[in-house]
Amino acid sequence: MNKFLFNRTLIIGMGLIGSSLSLALKHKNVSKYIIGYDNKNSVRKICIKKKIVNNFLDNLNQVKNFDLIILCSPLSTYSKILKKIIPQINVPSIITDVGSTKRSVIKEFEKYKKNKLIEFVPGHPIAGLEKSGPNYGFKDLFKDRYCILTPEIRNTKGEKKIKNLWNKVGMTVDIMDAHHHDRVLAMTSHIPQLIAYSIVATSTELEKNIKDEVIRYSASGFRDFTRLAGSDPTMWRDIYSQNKDAVLEMLGRFSEDLSSLQKAIRNNDLEALENVFKATRRMRQKIEKAGQAGTFDPRENN
Amino acid sequence: MNKFLFNRTLIIGMGLIGSSLSLALKHKNVSKYIIGYDNKNSVRKICIKKKIVNNFLDNLNQVKNFDLIILCSPLSTYSKILKKIIPQINVPSIITDVGSTKRSVIKEFEKYKKNKLIEFVPGHPIAGLEKSGPNYGFKDLFKDRYCILTPEIRNTKGEKKIKNLWNKVGMTVDIMDAHHHDRVLAMTSHIPQLIAYSIVATSTELEKNIKDEVIRYSASGFRDFTRLAGSDPTMWRDIYSQNKDAVLEMLGRFSEDLSSLQKAIRNNDLEALENVFKATRRMRQKIEKAGQAGTFDPRENN
Repeated sequence: MNKFLFNRTLIIGMGLIGSSLSLALKHKNVSKYIIGYDNKNSVRKICIKKKIVNNFLDNLNQVKNFDLIILCSPLSTYSKILKKIIPQINVPSIITDVGSTKRSVIKEFEKYKKNKLIEFVPGHPIAGLEKSGPNYGFKDLFKDRYCILTPEIRNTKGEKKIKNLWNKVGMTVDIMDAHHHDRVLAMTSHIPQLIAYSIVATSTELEKNIKDEVIRYSASGFRDFTRLAGSDPTMWRDIYSQNKDAVLEMLGRFSEDLSSLQKAIRNNDLEALENVFKATRRMRQKIEKAGQAGTFDPRENN
Repeated sequence: MNKFLFNRTLIIGMGLIGSSLSLALKHKNVSKYIIGYDNKNSVRKICIKKKIVNNFLDNLNQVKNFDLIILCSPLSTYSKILKKIIPQINVPSIITDVGSTKRSVIKEFEKYKKNKLIEFVPGHPIAGLEKSGPNYGFKDLFKDRYCILTPEIRNTKGEKKIKNLWNKVGMTVDIMDAHHHDRVLAMTSHIPQLIAYSIVATSTELEKNIKDEVIRYSASGFRDFTRLAGSDPTMWRDIYSQNKDAVLEMLGRFSEDLSSLQKAIRNNDLEALENVFKATRRMRQKIEKAGQAGTFDPRENN
């Protein structure tokens, strides 16, 4: 029996996620060969030097004999990449991805669903750092985290194999409708991230003397936001573009709630403030009970 | 020479800060005796059981012979407490506090500035946890943190002694104008906290099935906000009431910036989004360079 789940895996996009995934797949013997591709020469050099992959493709003109292709590049690159590689595929292949929005990805995959050699299994491993690039990649990035798959057809061989892949690198896999995924992630990830960007942007426009002190005293709360705001600009730009509807919906809700708090402050309505603050504290307690409170170290092992 | 900086210290309010401060002052031999007071019987019991203070006052009817009085109770209690204790003061005393807003505190102190026995030194040690109460108190809470003093008159004996006190428990002390303090803290602490409350409030109003998943996938960004939103509701209610002007000013700026981002998302203006995200990343890098990035463990020792 072949001990590997896949024979030849191609990872397109060798940033933080692509490189960490390659290291994890190697470590767990998930694929016999792992071949990487990245359009940045600097990334290629790091991956070769650090032996992150078995081999590197110079371009996407020879995408042949891969039984697994994983898109780990920004969402805005999917369209061009798929258009280029799909006509070359010559053996039964699974194509999966790690993108943070799923409706937009399914729409992209749908263009090729008549190609019976390929099974598409859209995925989203919820793991990351505020740092980007293969220099930060590490094999345990996915350990004890959740991965959401949003396949259009359920219980296929491809779904099972991709679920198995993420399980092997330490993830708990949930299956979900893509629309539902996009709303949940808008709330848990895209909106917090946008707000973090926004408040850090506000601080950058303050007068010089206050700005220096914002840095000096950032540990008093502000810092929690700056960690998020250090994340990869291109990746996030694409997420807001691809998950526009859900983001705007949740942002509308948030703005309403913030306006209510603002009004309560203006009117000195202490009771209203305290009631909201008590309700949010209960939410925090639920998260602690669910074991999701964490230590805020991205490499935490709780 | 007396090895103690103070002879008899009274700490009013034995929550997280009061109890941690008592433990720190004892540990560093800053005061010969430390007497606590709290209007909650449950707090009193914990402090006695855990030997957090040398002694406990049953009420505020015997506030005599203290050379240092530290207010560690919510801002809204200052007025009533001062009114009660100040007529009883019979020896030269320094009164200081740990409140998160300083203009409002100075206004309160000003009512008594004709009393020549007392020197007021408003203070704000920037340290805390999202947990409250003496059960969470620990002596190293203040270590390697900043403390801001906002005395009305500079270079007094009282200022020097209070600066010395905070230095002894491990803090770097900065002196600042109260108005400036309130604006800086609005940006670094009060607004991030309010936004955290607001987004967690938004999540609590979502449909049940989404709410459960927000908890499950909270590690994807949302969690960073819930830590803040777990903080003491009364303390924060008072901060917004006492620092209304600076909070509303900074909140106005934040709302403008958030609206700009919202508009960029709606209009698919990817360039505008990416430019903002790049600017905020630079702010994060400045905070990392300033050694303020931390590990998000409140007991971090970086």
